[in-house]
Amino acid sequence: MKLALVISVEETGFDAVAMRGGWVDAGRSAASLGYDGVELAVRDPARVDLDALAGLLRGTGLSVPAVGTGQAFLADGLSLSHPDEGLRARAIERVEAHIRFAARLGAAVILGLIRGRVAHDRQATEARLAASFDPLLRAAEREGVWLLIEPINRYETDLMTTVGETLEFIQDLGAQRLGLLADTFHMNIEEASIETSLRAAGPRLRHVHAADSNRHAPGWGHLDFAAVLATLRAMRYRGWLSAEILPRPDPLAAAQQTITHLRSLLNTTLIKEGMA
Amino acid sequence: MKLALVISVEETGFDAVAMRGGWVDAGRSAASLGYDGVELAVRDPARVDLDALAGLLRGTGLSVPAVGTGQAFLADGLSLSHPDEGLRARAIERVEAHIRFAARLGAAVILGLIRGRVAHDRQATEARLAASFDPLLRAAEREGVWLLIEPINRYETDLMTTVGETLEFIQDLGAQRLGLLADTFHMNIEEASIETSLRAAGPRLRHVHAADSNRHAPGWGHLDFAAVLATLRAMRYRGWLSAEILPRPDPLAAAQQTITHLRSLLNTTLIKEGMA
Repeated sequence: MKLALVISVEETGFDAVAMRGGWVDAGRSAASLGYDGVELAVRDPARVDLDALAGLLRGTGLSVPAVGTGQAFLADGLSLSHPDEGLRARAIERVEAHIRFAARLGAAVILGLIRGRVAHDRQATEARLAASFDPLLRAAEREGVWLLIEPINRYETDLMTTVGETLEFIQDLGAQRLGLLADTFHMNIEEASIETSLRAAGPRLRHVHAADSNRHAPGWGHLDFAAVLATLRAMRYRGWLSAEILPRPDPLAAAQQTITHLRSLLNTTLIKEGMA
Repeated sequence: MKLALVISVEETGFDAVAMRGGWVDAGRSAASLGYDGVELAVRDPARVDLDALAGLLRGTGLSVPAVGTGQAFLADGLSLSHPDEGLRARAIERVEAHIRFAARLGAAVILGLIRGRVAHDRQATEARLAASFDPLLRAAEREGVWLLIEPINRYETDLMTTVGETLEFIQDLGAQRLGLLADTFHMNIEEASIETSLRAAGPRLRHVHAADSNRHAPGWGHLDFAAVLATLRAMRYRGWLSAEILPRPDPLAAAQQTITHLRSLLNTTLIKEGMA
């Protein structure tokens, strides 16, 4: 499994992003620590310094497995389920820009907080959200980009908090390029069993966020990452492990702990499989 | 260990409380399921029907190990750290009423959400909170009541989210009748190791809220309650296990699952200890 580190390509209020500020330096640090890629948290692709990004990727050989959109919700209030039709249209436009941006990088687009929250009426909110997926799935198909819905814990949204609800939404839409992103921090709060829910996602699972139970680097909480990785291997998961962690005690220490811990577990489970 | 079920003595917006509405019936159900006590969530003791409560306790033999105060924050906006001095004074008065109410029941008073949240400046907020404890600890001493501070996860407060921070606050105040309430749902999010943090609380641990990782009834999430109970036994914990759970799929089923699961684990660890 390839490892990525989430970095934000601008200043952000979203604090689960490692190495804020100086994102080009953060990318270089990730590469020198041995990460294979960086997942980019992008508020608005129009504001990204594309030359700097191209330089970083060329200079380091890093891939970009996925592009996050949560900052468009947090900083600009854009929501794919918003009752204000103008605002919902702007959210769709923004995500379409993310899709075109991701296409150039060979990345998927993550739909997390940007799906919004239930406003007044759950059924109407869900209907608006489903309607927003029509143009987005067309754009994704056209650009050859996967859209990944991330179940997010109850405190951050009330739309799709569990893997089960998210799979249902995905199956209702029935689209090809629609997958699920499993985040171990959120799963620790919402899933009755993390491993059972990963298995339930099956081939729809296209990306994994690795963070420990307290959103610190893996190994600094109480999640059983050996069990998580063994489950992913048994599922023949071919996607990335992307660390979306709190930058504590400092960004570099957290990024170092993450890769050391996950690589060590990956090697151990590989050896066990070789012996079996 | 004795088992209690949290019930609210009035309609509430706080949804982690089993069996809302018809609290006398809820108390009777708890007793008939085999619970030893009920923890009462009380917005304002002045609004409690004392005759109905006395009747319930006399009729069922239930104890009241603790009285919760969170609804005074959620419904009335009272906070022990509020920058508005009038509001902070009203919060102190309200908790003093809780203390007198608890004294009549032989119960402790829980200080959870009512401590408030950081307003502008963390240091000033913490200073106001500490100042509010002066009159409260005097009242607690006078009435012979324990005050229990509950670490609460990051999404609900930013004042004392971990056992470690809470112990520090308790030790700084250095009071006799000040203890810690450990809630397994919050610990799952905040503690690097639930068992290590329980042990760290040591004799300051005076009450435990039992809820699974998803706040459902114990056994319906992924927490290792066998390990939690074994740790509590090894610490010679003499307090209560009080279930503060989501009433799902319905209040009765959740209360039944809780007592069945916890009693079975308590019996198993007792047998293991007997054999050791």
